[in-house]
Amino acid sequence: MTAFFDRHRPMLDAAVAAIETRGFWSPFPEVPSGKVYGETARDDGQAAYDALLNQPFALPGHPESQRLGAETSPFGPALGVTYPAASPAVLIAAAQAAAPALAAARVESRIGVCLEILARLNRNSFLLAHATQHTTGQAFAMAFQAGGPHAQDRGLEAVALAWQEMTRFPAAALWEKPQGKAAPLVLEKHWTLVPAGIALTIGCNTFPTWNSYPGLFASLATGNPVIVKPHPAAILPLALTVRIAREVLAEAGLPADAVLLAVDAPGAEVTKALATDPAVRLIDYTGSGAFGGWLRDHARQAHLFTEEAGVNSVVIAATPDLEGMCANLAFSLALYSGQMCTAPQNIYIPRDGIETDQGHLGFDAVAAALTAALDGLLADPARAAGVCGAIANPATLDRIAALRGTGRVLRDSAPLAEGRSATPLLLAVSADDPLAEAECFGPVALLVAVDSAEDGIARAAALARQKGAITAALYDTDEARITRAIAAFAGAGVNLSINLTGNIFVNQSAAFSDFHVTGANPAGNASLTDPAFIAPRFRRAMWRRQRAA
Amino acid sequence: MTAFFDRHRPMLDAAVAAIETRGFWSPFPEVPSGKVYGETARDDGQAAYDALLNQPFALPGHPESQRLGAETSPFGPALGVTYPAASPAVLIAAAQAAAPALAAARVESRIGVCLEILARLNRNSFLLAHATQHTTGQAFAMAFQAGGPHAQDRGLEAVALAWQEMTRFPAAALWEKPQGKAAPLVLEKHWTLVPAGIALTIGCNTFPTWNSYPGLFASLATGNPVIVKPHPAAILPLALTVRIAREVLAEAGLPADAVLLAVDAPGAEVTKALATDPAVRLIDYTGSGAFGGWLRDHARQAHLFTEEAGVNSVVIAATPDLEGMCANLAFSLALYSGQMCTAPQNIYIPRDGIETDQGHLGFDAVAAALTAALDGLLADPARAAGVCGAIANPATLDRIAALRGTGRVLRDSAPLAEGRSATPLLLAVSADDPLAEAECFGPVALLVAVDSAEDGIARAAALARQKGAITAALYDTDEARITRAIAAFAGAGVNLSINLTGNIFVNQSAAFSDFHVTGANPAGNASLTDPAFIAPRFRRAMWRRQRAA
Repeated sequence: MTAFFDRHRPMLDAAVAAIETRGFWSPFPEVPSGKVYGETARDDGQAAYDALLNQPFALPGHPESQRLGAETSPFGPALGVTYPAASPAVLIAAAQAAAPALAAARVESRIGVCLEILARLNRNSFLLAHATQHTTGQAFAMAFQAGGPHAQDRGLEAVALAWQEMTRFPAAALWEKPQGKAAPLVLEKHWTLVPAGIALTIGCNTFPTWNSYPGLFASLATGNPVIVKPHPAAILPLALTVRIAREVLAEAGLPADAVLLAVDAPGAEVTKALATDPAVRLIDYTGSGAFGGWLRDHARQAHLFTEEAGVNSVVIAATPDLEGMCANLAFSLALYSGQMCTAPQNIYIPRDGIETDQGHLGFDAVAAALTAALDGLLADPARAAGVCGAIANPATLDRIAALRGTGRVLRDSAPLAEGRSATPLLLAVSADDPLAEAECFGPVALLVAVDSAEDGIARAAALARQKGAITAALYDTDEARITRAIAAFAGAGVNLSINLTGNIFVNQSAAFSDFHVTGANPAGNASLTDPAFIAPRFRRAMWRRQRAA
Repeated sequence: MTAFFDRHRPMLDAAVAAIETRGFWSPFPEVPSGKVYGETARDDGQAAYDALLNQPFALPGHPESQRLGAETSPFGPALGVTYPAASPAVLIAAAQAAAPALAAARVESRIGVCLEILARLNRNSFLLAHATQHTTGQAFAMAFQAGGPHAQDRGLEAVALAWQEMTRFPAAALWEKPQGKAAPLVLEKHWTLVPAGIALTIGCNTFPTWNSYPGLFASLATGNPVIVKPHPAAILPLALTVRIAREVLAEAGLPADAVLLAVDAPGAEVTKALATDPAVRLIDYTGSGAFGGWLRDHARQAHLFTEEAGVNSVVIAATPDLEGMCANLAFSLALYSGQMCTAPQNIYIPRDGIETDQGHLGFDAVAAALTAALDGLLADPARAAGVCGAIANPATLDRIAALRGTGRVLRDSAPLAEGRSATPLLLAVSADDPLAEAECFGPVALLVAVDSAEDGIARAAALARQKGAITAALYDTDEARITRAIAAFAGAGVNLSINLTGNIFVNQSAAFSDFHVTGANPAGNASLTDPAFIAPRFRRAMWRRQRAA
């Protein structure tokens, strides 16, 4: 049945067009407004969230041998939600049972299901915002965007590219080879799309939906049952996603078990058992490099798509707008307390200072301007809470506390009024400090004095090549040096933002336009969403038969 | 410089169109005729080949610390050709030195170089035919086709898909995000294509060019320097290829060392050292599953594309044309003495026999008809030599000799007049004979009595799933069963040919139309040529910059 496909065909076509032109586009409004989502949407979302708390989460028909779940909001309360849990073997068996029908479904049917899931997720964006806020620590507005429409965009992007890839070659062809004066040889050929197998999507704590949707939807669209393994601290947003997916699958006459939830508890994790099951052929993983390395070493039977850790750098070489630069960087550092994979960490500044619209400024003066911008941004407690949100993982606070003892503190980190929180810590460190050569996840920025702008660019690019990086930023006025920096960062496989000063930030990555992560350095081997992210998820098997000419 | 690109643009466009429609197409005529290739082409090719014998092979400017090479024709004489050899470290360094210029070249420049290389290879098809014949043992006509035009087709197919992939998204875009009544946010974005790194192409003995060109051209087109590692017994066809590639690169102003030859000697192989070098990021491999497994275990830093071993099956369920079926199968078994990766091995026949146009025939009667067809095909010594050619690897003869002692010999293998040769051995074995569950490379077919056609289909599909298979063939008249077989073989990731009786054979795989190997079973993880074969060979890195609205 392709009613869903027919209903959403215009959205699909527009998504394909957006991918091909890579301008701004989204069908999912990012503003958490009743004018857009309906007058009662905000209240309905709050009520729906409240109704989930302290209850068993209903996932009808889902394999269940026990109930697990112990999420606690970084803003305080325990969620009290429990989820159906089953052993890896039971989940694998359920996925295998769902596989044949999913594989046999028409491409239009699977694509239609994916589009309908996304449309329903979008209608639930307020609910997803609350679920995201209280599992990740993102402030509400960001949780709405990153957990809702922006994640839905990334899901749709993957569906649109999967649609393109599955239909770019004809399903059948006539092959007619001339034989001189004799009758030509004629074969009719038909191709069947063969899904890779069972897919496992391993979610992270900080962006449970945004980072999981691309793999989830890419695998489902191409016919692979998906087992969604949330981070134990951020289950709810993905449980809601799985529930909606199962409802839509069932309505389309497909097995609900084509999308499953794998919940576990700290100390009794199921991820390794799932990832190494011979039936699992696709793994999408967002998380630490350490566990990424474990998966590479052990889940050898699967095609592994990763987003891991890295060190994102800023090089400040010169600026004609000191205030704009500092305001822009301050927001990038403070947003979600630096817990974005795209947040800057190392800020390279020539030790002899830089040219600015306020004259030549020394290293300390630039550092002071950045500190002042951060202080200004966070002066109003309500605004500070709205920008910084809370800290997802308590270990991040410990790390910040330990860092205070190293380097020279330019700006101290401090809690906010609400939740487990921490504003950015700014440290000055020397260029050879080991601190500046590894990821310090969370609200910390290292201001690194370097010999020159060239030195900063070379160090930032080399670090990206060696340790990985998802973003880089450059502030400069020397066009020849900018050109050289473009080549250096491209060679290191990093996306570079140049001279951002307004309301657009190095952290931001827009679906349909930006490829998120290049796949060309250790920060991840997958790029959202390029053809290499889609193509290995299915294969083509032919049958051909002679036909009289 | 893009003169080559401009010259060959019509061929490129036609290749892209062929890939998209998947009908018959080739710009490289497969007939070894002076009418097509020029009156003197045949003699010129022979003379050029003779002039190479017993000489050092000239590869100007190529790294060289010693001369290696000890090829002997399966038809008799030693070639006496020596090639420049250098250590893996020297080859890697030369490739690395060539990398920046190759990466920085315009896409049109690299594609143009690839197209010009292919055009020159085509003009040298007679020379390549001799080189292929006397390294692989293929008879001349087959060596011409498989070593020349058909290999060139596969190279062009990879170049055309690389062109599509590199240009499917714009190189730059304007991203303009509305801001209500305020001025929109505007970013200009630019993408740089980032090659993966150094590519290694590991050739095989039997199809040195056909199986190497896809990876070689896919990597070169996408900007990766390629080290070509031929099988020690089949160097010449690839050495000629490397020479032409280096000439064209130099003419285009690109480093000749973007294509290098890695020659080694038995007992002092360099493949492992090359494959595990950290700079090698792409490996294309054709060969045994054992060495494929070694590469998987050890060359972990590289993206590995493989074609390995498998067991190809035929299921004979029924036929309305016994004679046509047997003639077709006999040719498939005899062609190049079963040394094609696409040649059938197991032939499943119901023990109670099948329905044919000559009435119901028992297992033995079907076997006798197939044996008679083989005997008929090979009765004329000249024709037999032209079909069977010679045996590439002496070990294959040993294997055939050993097999005589197992199973029931239905037709014995015998040498031909010319070269190291062997006609097909036909054995009857039981369905549970371990012989029928592994690849017996070379001229041997196992006729397996099974309970029913369904049993044969199930066994063939299960074996393909477990041990790999590139091709399958079915002879049947029951349309419902054919439909079930299509699903079974597709599920096992095998390309299926149904009821072939004329001048088209299960062994044959045509570029631009057939995807060779599905990548969906252990016979190989790569498919020639699908997007998954191209996409991981390069990445996209962005730079973006704010623009006043």
